[in-house]
Amino acid sequence: MSKKDAEPQEAEPPPEQTVEQLEAKVAELEDRWKRALAETENLRKRLAKDLATAQEAERRRVTAAWLPIVDNLELALAHADEANPIVTGIKAVRDQALDLLAALGYPRDNETGIGFDPVRHEAVSVMPGGGEPGTVVSVVRPGYGKAQQQLRPAAVVVAGEQQDS
Amino acid sequence: MSKKDAEPQEAEPPPEQTVEQLEAKVAELEDRWKRALAETENLRKRLAKDLATAQEAERRRVTAAWLPIVDNLELALAHADEANPIVTGIKAVRDQALDLLAALGYPRDNETGIGFDPVRHEAVSVMPGGGEPGTVVSVVRPGYGKAQQQLRPAAVVVAGEQQDS
Repeated sequence: MSKKDAEPQEAEPPPEQTVEQLEAKVAELEDRWKRALAETENLRKRLAKDLATAQEAERRRVTAAWLPIVDNLELALAHADEANPIVTGIKAVRDQALDLLAALGYPRDNETGIGFDPVRHEAVSVMPGGGEPGTVVSVVRPGYGKAQQQLRPAAVVVAGEQQDS
Repeated sequence: MSKKDAEPQEAEPPPEQTVEQLEAKVAELEDRWKRALAETENLRKRLAKDLATAQEAERRRVTAAWLPIVDNLELALAHADEANPIVTGIKAVRDQALDLLAALGYPRDNETGIGFDPVRHEAVSVMPGGGEPGTVVSVVRPGYGKAQQQLRPAAVVVAGEQQDS
C-alpha cells in the first residue's frame, strides 16, 4: 500500500489511481469547457434575438403612445368648418402623422366593405341589413398596423342579417 | 529510462511523464473552463447593457420622428385666429403632445433670459443690445430633452454686446 515501498527512488510517486483520476478529471473538465462554450454561443444567439424583440417592443410602445394625439387631431378636424384656413394646415399635419405611422410599420386601416377579420377588426356594433352580413359597414376608429404587426385593431360596425319586421 | 524496467509488475504502467502531462492538461482545461465561464458572464452583462442602449436609441429615434409633426402643429397654431373654435381643440392636442414628450423623457425647453448653454442651445442669431450679453433673448424653435438626454437643442437668439453707433 505504501508508495515509498513500491517506488523507493521517488519521494512522491504517482499511483496508478492518480492517473485514472486525472484522466477522469480531464474528461470532466473537457466536458465542462465545451458546455461553457456552447452556453456562451447560445446566450449570444438568444440575446441577439432579445435585442430585436426589445427594439420592436419599444417602437411599438412609443408609437402607441402617440395614437391618442392622432385620434384627437382627427376628432378636431371632424368638427371643423372646412372654410377655416387653419383646417388645411391641420389636415396636412394629420397626413404627415399618418405617413409617419406607415413608415414606422403601422399603416392606417380604415377599409370598409370587406369581411370582418378578428385579427384587424374589433366590432363595436352590428347593423342589421347594413350590407352583406359579416362585412365592415363603417370604421368608428381606424386601426394601425399589419397582420403580423398590429398596433391597434380598427373599431368597426359590422353588417348583420336583415331583420324582417 | 525504460518504464518497464522501473515497474515490471505493470503491463502498461503510467509513466511519470504522463501524470505530469495529465496534470498540465487538467490545469489548462481548468483555465479554459474558467475563462469560458467568465466570458459568458461578461457577455451577459454586456448584452444587458446593449439591450438598454438599444431600447433608449429606439425610443429616441421614434420620438424624434414625431417632432416635425409637433412643430407643424405649432406653426399652424401660430398663424391661427384665436376666435376659431377649432383652435382650442388643436391647442389641447398640442399640449397632449408636449405632455407625452415629457413623459418619454424629453420635456420642452423654451426658456428665455438664461445664459446660453451649448449643450441645450443652438444659436441661430445674435441680437446686439438684446439684453445681458450671452443670455437667450428668444426661442425660435423649442428644444426637447434634458442635459444627459437631449432629443434636440433649442434654436435661440442670443443677446450680444451693445453696439455704439
